[in-house]
Amino acid sequence: MNSEILLEKLFAGEARAVARAITKIENGADGAAEIMKAVFPKTGNALVIGITGSPGAGKSSLVDKLALYYKEKGERIGIVCVDPSSPFSGGAILGDRIRMQTLGLDKNVFIRSMATRGNLGGLSRATVDAVAILDAAGFDKVIVETVGVGQDEVEIVKTADVSVVVLVPGMGDDIQAIKAGIMEIGDVFVINKADREGVLRTEKELEALLSLAHRPDFWNSPIVKTVATENKGIEDLSKAIESYKEFQAQGEASLIRRQAIARWRLLELLREKLLSDLLGKNGTSEKLEQLALDIAEKKNNPYSAVEEMLHG
Amino acid sequence: MNSEILLEKLFAGEARAVARAITKIENGADGAAEIMKAVFPKTGNALVIGITGSPGAGKSSLVDKLALYYKEKGERIGIVCVDPSSPFSGGAILGDRIRMQTLGLDKNVFIRSMATRGNLGGLSRATVDAVAILDAAGFDKVIVETVGVGQDEVEIVKTADVSVVVLVPGMGDDIQAIKAGIMEIGDVFVINKADREGVLRTEKELEALLSLAHRPDFWNSPIVKTVATENKGIEDLSKAIESYKEFQAQGEASLIRRQAIARWRLLELLREKLLSDLLGKNGTSEKLEQLALDIAEKKNNPYSAVEEMLHG
Repeated sequence: MNSEILLEKLFAGEARAVARAITKIENGADGAAEIMKAVFPKTGNALVIGITGSPGAGKSSLVDKLALYYKEKGERIGIVCVDPSSPFSGGAILGDRIRMQTLGLDKNVFIRSMATRGNLGGLSRATVDAVAILDAAGFDKVIVETVGVGQDEVEIVKTADVSVVVLVPGMGDDIQAIKAGIMEIGDVFVINKADREGVLRTEKELEALLSLAHRPDFWNSPIVKTVATENKGIEDLSKAIESYKEFQAQGEASLIRRQAIARWRLLELLREKLLSDLLGKNGTSEKLEQLALDIAEKKNNPYSAVEEMLHG
Repeated sequence: MNSEILLEKLFAGEARAVARAITKIENGADGAAEIMKAVFPKTGNALVIGITGSPGAGKSSLVDKLALYYKEKGERIGIVCVDPSSPFSGGAILGDRIRMQTLGLDKNVFIRSMATRGNLGGLSRATVDAVAILDAAGFDKVIVETVGVGQDEVEIVKTADVSVVVLVPGMGDDIQAIKAGIMEIGDVFVINKADREGVLRTEKELEALLSLAHRPDFWNSPIVKTVATENKGIEDLSKAIESYKEFQAQGEASLIRRQAIARWRLLELLREKLLSDLLGKNGTSEKLEQLALDIAEKKNNPYSAVEEMLHG
């Protein structure tokens, strides 16, 4: 399939073309940049929902139920699942297949895991590009689900239009530490597994923490209680997401946020491009291996080696 | 304090010099590369222990108790706590102070949180450099504790001599997903909070998963049960760590691992250096801001903008 036909099918919303385009940008294949240049002007119609939270919070179930809810309203939903903690296991693909069966495999739901990250980095950038592809392919909602709660994941979720943070009752002591970091990024908070003991306490703690946080846009992040496995609270969640979207559309915050996302994306792309240009030069990869061995054997140090890579 | 005196005090193990050197490399300050060049040849004596696991697993308590255990044996312990999920809150510093009180503030225990990551990235690299500084400053054990379980954290833990993965009983459904990714990096597994219900089931599940994993070095990762808050199982943990260290010292895996670490570190440094060189050029930062605004307003796309940054 040449690029022109691929793009045509992509804009028509064909799942196979979407999958192929994502694979191309994931691998940094020839023509990937051309695809993204064509895709970019067609973006901006989808609502991008980022969902993050601790492992064990039941994010996957919540995402699936939310997707089904939108699907029943006649919308098309794309799901991008970021699982960087699983770089070797291949479990991601298996997981996708299981979930596709639950969600119903048709042209209105597309699910894709992003798990590989090579030496050149770029998982965050590839994820953001995958979201743009789904947007350009006419999906109404694009849900980005992250498995971990590290720096990369936080940055990915920040690029969404609406960020949802999922907690569960009684997660233990150092959930406080997580909460502190996550306060700034949550536009909507979910307490999932809300049929469990301790839900009231978690809600009170969360309210207390939220009252201390001062958002520059003065938004009061709502707290929604759900039991995803029983399909409870999903409509409330969709309403909370909608209310933030409406709030955001009013203010200038929207442009500032988009600029911040664009800046971050530019820096990611630059970092990747500069390194791949360097490593693409004749003999540079061999030099890297040799220098790495020298360092391992203590014949050199990383800082001098970098200077040799750049100037020697 | 000039660099020479700083280095002298650092090699003498003075906490303030260590702290200052880490701050310099964290900020990418002038002379940071020179410090690391001097530090590097003095490294390789400390045992570097990486500890990761899900939020709520009680990692901090476990690390504190392990540090106290080593301290009572007359060893000097450095702790580097990586908390990238908390970039704005300043909670890290407060946390350090509380923990220093518990651990006893003396020259045998040093604790430092790494939380900031600027536009230029580099948290992982800064963490690895901080570990090298503590190593060169004569700390016998350096413990690297990560709060999140994302890609960055996994990579950081991989650079340790021994990687410890902490789990708790009954973490719920999608712990499976985490486990799958973590199998490859755990040299020692801990089931903390082992006085809770479900510990036997978690142990069985873990054993089953471990029996499926095939490590290139044929090491059988031991499982240790602890109750950190009650100081139970800490000696067992230290023995498991020691046994892996001895195992590793025998084989060639050690050099291969050090080469892999060196390669990763070189790539991190290169990525950072190439980008900061570019952004250090006259007018480039302003250009970046303008292009980011253009993209936000849909007058440009990220891929064309990158080309303009590099060639235009």
